Amino acid sequence: MGYFRDNVEQTAAYTPGFQPKALDVVKLNTNENPYPPSPEVMKALAEIRPEQLRRYPDPLGNAFREAAARINGVSSENILCCNGGDDLLSIAIRACCDERRPLAYPVPTYTLYPVLARLQPCETIELPFDAEFNLPAKLATTGAALTIVCNPNAPTGSIIGVEELASLAAEIKGVLLIDEAYADFAERNCASLVKDFANVIVLRSLSKGYSLAGLRFGYAIADKGLIEGLVKVKDSYNVDAVAIALATAAITDQAYFRANVEKIKSDRRTLSEQLRAMGFVVPESHSNFVFAQVKNGSAEPIHKELERRNIFVRYWKQPGLADKLRISVGTKEQNERLIAALREIAAR
Amino acid sequence: MGYFRDNVEQTAAYTPGFQPKALDVVKLNTNENPYPPSPEVMKALAEIRPEQLRRYPDPLGNAFREAAARINGVSSENILCCNGGDDLLSIAIRACCDERRPLAYPVPTYTLYPVLARLQPCETIELPFDAEFNLPAKLATTGAALTIVCNPNAPTGSIIGVEELASLAAEIKGVLLIDEAYADFAERNCASLVKDFANVIVLRSLSKGYSLAGLRFGYAIADKGLIEGLVKVKDSYNVDAVAIALATAAITDQAYFRANVEKIKSDRRTLSEQLRAMGFVVPESHSNFVFAQVKNGSAEPIHKELERRNIFVRYWKQPGLADKLRISVGTKEQNERLIAALREIAAR
Repeated sequence: MGYFRDNVEQTAAYTPGFQPKALDVVKLNTNENPYPPSPEVMKALAEIRPEQLRRYPDPLGNAFREAAARINGVSSENILCCNGGDDLLSIAIRACCDERRPLAYPVPTYTLYPVLARLQPCETIELPFDAEFNLPAKLATTGAALTIVCNPNAPTGSIIGVEELASLAAEIKGVLLIDEAYADFAERNCASLVKDFANVIVLRSLSKGYSLAGLRFGYAIADKGLIEGLVKVKDSYNVDAVAIALATAAITDQAYFRANVEKIKSDRRTLSEQLRAMGFVVPESHSNFVFAQVKNGSAEPIHKELERRNIFVRYWKQPGLADKLRISVGTKEQNERLIAALREIAAR
Repeated sequence: MGYFRDNVEQTAAYTPGFQPKALDVVKLNTNENPYPPSPEVMKALAEIRPEQLRRYPDPLGNAFREAAARINGVSSENILCCNGGDDLLSIAIRACCDERRPLAYPVPTYTLYPVLARLQPCETIELPFDAEFNLPAKLATTGAALTIVCNPNAPTGSIIGVEELASLAAEIKGVLLIDEAYADFAERNCASLVKDFANVIVLRSLSKGYSLAGLRFGYAIADKGLIEGLVKVKDSYNVDAVAIALATAAITDQAYFRANVEKIKSDRRTLSEQLRAMGFVVPESHSNFVFAQVKNGSAEPIHKELERRNIFVRYWKQPGLADKLRISVGTKEQNERLIAALREIAAR
């Protein structure tokens, strides 16, 4: 008998995007927000008292739940705080899936889903998007215990309509988790579906829209019954007192959030157009990154040349992805440095 | 098909100790440290920059690993950062246990272990301590994939010797996790065992000895091979940037830590003697709490009377525990208020 379960032994650890230590780099590889968090977050940080560190935190983070409920038009009982969106993905898979209860999702998508499935373990049913990134029709009839739709999707940046996801929720027998980690940059989101469907979990993250990737804070919006089940699986104190205070300050400052998001959406349009003008195929993005396909061959040489210039974008050497780059929308200056470097590489 | 797995449906959520909202209470029910964290922690907090919140944190928290390695006389590769000790318990059970790979532990002990086992699910082999809290001999031959010994044990405060745990590690075929959440208050600990045994994980927490229950930070000390397996199961970014910085500051200030721990150990002796003088049976504690048994009948009436006076201690209405109270060692003033209230209750 090995020390670990066979499925764990046979699983490779998920590889997060490279985090360069040097500060003078253009870091467009992990979809961080290029702008700092709200000044209200730094105020909340300055107000943390030793007593909040000494005592156990509120196990459910009710201060955040109430703020998030107000903003999403639901009750605080519909909110669950998580240690980043990944914590919620792990909780949901552990709550819903096992060797007799599969996980289904369209591909390509967030590559953490199959890693979590192997660790559980549970079977995965992977169904490909079509060329226009439409939802695979068969997703409604997989019989999966849990179906995940990343929406807007990573790494494609594409989006499925709310009505279509409502139909999917009505058709499937299991739980539908809509991973809205990037929904802050889209025109629509699915929060309202949790009022009509007892089987829908909407995942949100404060990493992107609220510039808090370093804080690890995400949350679920779902029917009270689903939240109660997820609470059983989460760690008793999964979010810490500092994170609760800072996340609450961030989500409460909606004016800063909206202005930040609008800047990124505007720069996303410019960046997409510039990339298209250089010959990349760039579908419309509803997220804080663009998905750029080279016309011919592999995107690997460009990825390497960018890295040599201290410009980091995300590249996967995988079938269907090897001709594409996922590029986070940075500051205007970062985007311009990227475009200048791409022009230089193309001109060689 | 229900939305959740049967084992999840049938599990009751773990109930953390009650967290009263009022501040004018004597809170001796969740083993928090009564003293604030090191001033170095508050300095580290004041130095957090927006950029640390905006970017993803170091996935492994290497700054903390290096500090903890120095203090424990191991290499940083022997350290794994966790979102509280509970995160490590969950990771270890998910890595080692399933329906064919049981979990074993002596009882009574930390009541989270069986909850995590039901969620996995895996079989539990519970073997009772004897009246002197010695390790059950059969623990060496259970065939469990994972054996957990809470040491010092909660809620008893008793301790098993390092040599005895070394023998257990040598005898069992699976992994031995020594839950040292309370070891900061004991004379000895088992960190050195990880050098001799490839199957030993030592769990540490910053919640108690370092007054950081609100921060959620714990860590594993183990052979590099074990750490690599646990890394696969943990969330990619399980500890946040603020927590890494504050935990590193806390563990680096060993002078403050030692003085804090010595105060609690001294007050633990006084409190134990006072309780014994009042007729409670109080075994020697190696932790930051005492385990007080009433001479006759149930401890429930005393628990209720204390609560009426805004004094909170921990009570479990369970066979073998119903005649006992677990009382965290507080400040001198808190301990005195407790003793005064107990005298008042006894005199009625």
